[in-house]
Amino acid sequence: MHIVSIDSSSHLASIALAADDTIIAESLFSANKALSARLLPELERMLATAGLTVGSIDLFACAVGPGSFTGVRAGVATIQGLALATGKPCVGFSTLALVAMNFPLSSLPVCPMLDARKNEVYAALYDCSSPLPSPVIPDCVMGPEAFLDKLLATTDTPIILAGDGALRYNEVISGRLGGRALFAPSFLNVGHAANGAFLALHAHRSGQDLEPGRLLPVYLRPSETEYAKLDSQKTRQSRCF
Amino acid sequence: MHIVSIDSSSHLASIALAADDTIIAESLFSANKALSARLLPELERMLATAGLTVGSIDLFACAVGPGSFTGVRAGVATIQGLALATGKPCVGFSTLALVAMNFPLSSLPVCPMLDARKNEVYAALYDCSSPLPSPVIPDCVMGPEAFLDKLLATTDTPIILAGDGALRYNEVISGRLGGRALFAPSFLNVGHAANGAFLALHAHRSGQDLEPGRLLPVYLRPSETEYAKLDSQKTRQSRCF
Repeated sequence: MHIVSIDSSSHLASIALAADDTIIAESLFSANKALSARLLPELERMLATAGLTVGSIDLFACAVGPGSFTGVRAGVATIQGLALATGKPCVGFSTLALVAMNFPLSSLPVCPMLDARKNEVYAALYDCSSPLPSPVIPDCVMGPEAFLDKLLATTDTPIILAGDGALRYNEVISGRLGGRALFAPSFLNVGHAANGAFLALHAHRSGQDLEPGRLLPVYLRPSETEYAKLDSQKTRQSRCF
Repeated sequence: MHIVSIDSSSHLASIALAADDTIIAESLFSANKALSARLLPELERMLATAGLTVGSIDLFACAVGPGSFTGVRAGVATIQGLALATGKPCVGFSTLALVAMNFPLSSLPVCPMLDARKNEVYAALYDCSSPLPSPVIPDCVMGPEAFLDKLLATTDTPIILAGDGALRYNEVISGRLGGRALFAPSFLNVGHAANGAFLALHAHRSGQDLEPGRLLPVYLRPSETEYAKLDSQKTRQSRCF
């Protein structure tokens, strides 16, 4: 089964081609500029190099968030379009699960933490002791201190922390977790679409295929416009799903 | 510090651009055909996309083996040429260390094992509990059974096994290690040049820069031609360095 997997939810986008659980090709590139204009040409280049066509792909997958609203939307729209045009199924996977997968078979729990701005983080806690990460604290958005409270109430082991949120709130985390905080080096702070292809394969095998119209971003919190409205209604709260 | 890192020692080649310990771009692609003809154009494409030039690179690095003789030679020659032409330093890193780095911060020891053909494996045991892998059993080449004896004499914990050698000798390994063998899924069997950039950065910072002429492949065993000669002299033995 040939899989196309995209993660465009952070500053470093990635596209992977896989045959079942084997990587055929992967490309990571800066997504800061003209992401939408780069995703499809990069995918086309990779397919051509690998001797494949869009028509030979059996499953399309992408990170559905949480992360950059614009980035997630670009990835989801691209995968929706490809799946719709080819009549092939698509699946989505969590951006946070993708970062957690940088620590496969880890016996320590992994906390991916992304900077959500507005003094909040997108974060979760995953059990990565098997190849498929399993959520211990589901993906959520809240202030870093509130999330650390959740972490402390959940586990008393050392915790691996990764992602640009862990980098930004390094001091807050160290202050609360002390020596239990194991910070990943920078090069492990971003997700890899190839890991997403593995997630997608398992989602497909367990019947989680979606119609393209049902592949939706998971923003976890309202957009800027919605935020402004909520703020004016003074109803802004931490949200955990 | 801008780094170019290449791993062309297996069937999936990779090139990475990094700024210190942060990934700028990475490309993984099939190295089965015309590897030498693809390395430089792919690097040029990546540099152009990232807005960099060869002249702006401060450090060149590559996997020096063990692995495909032809692949390793192509990577080493490319990096030697780039370093010589630009007057910048270069460093080499182990292909096996690169595979071990797929399991960062692991509390279990990691055994990368590559198929060396001739009923032998390139293998090692690494402590990956810190971001830089540390060899417990240094890179070596020998029959899988002999290497498993070494493993059993070295550790009594579960062991993470990765690489195409672990895949090929899966049954032999399971027979000897039983439930202690934790096999990585296929997509974790190959090295990533981005991890090599991190190794290279630390090698550079600890003064292990090389003159281009001193960056040499580490084959661990003689070439086909030398093998034939050795066989005829009946001196072929397991070798561990």
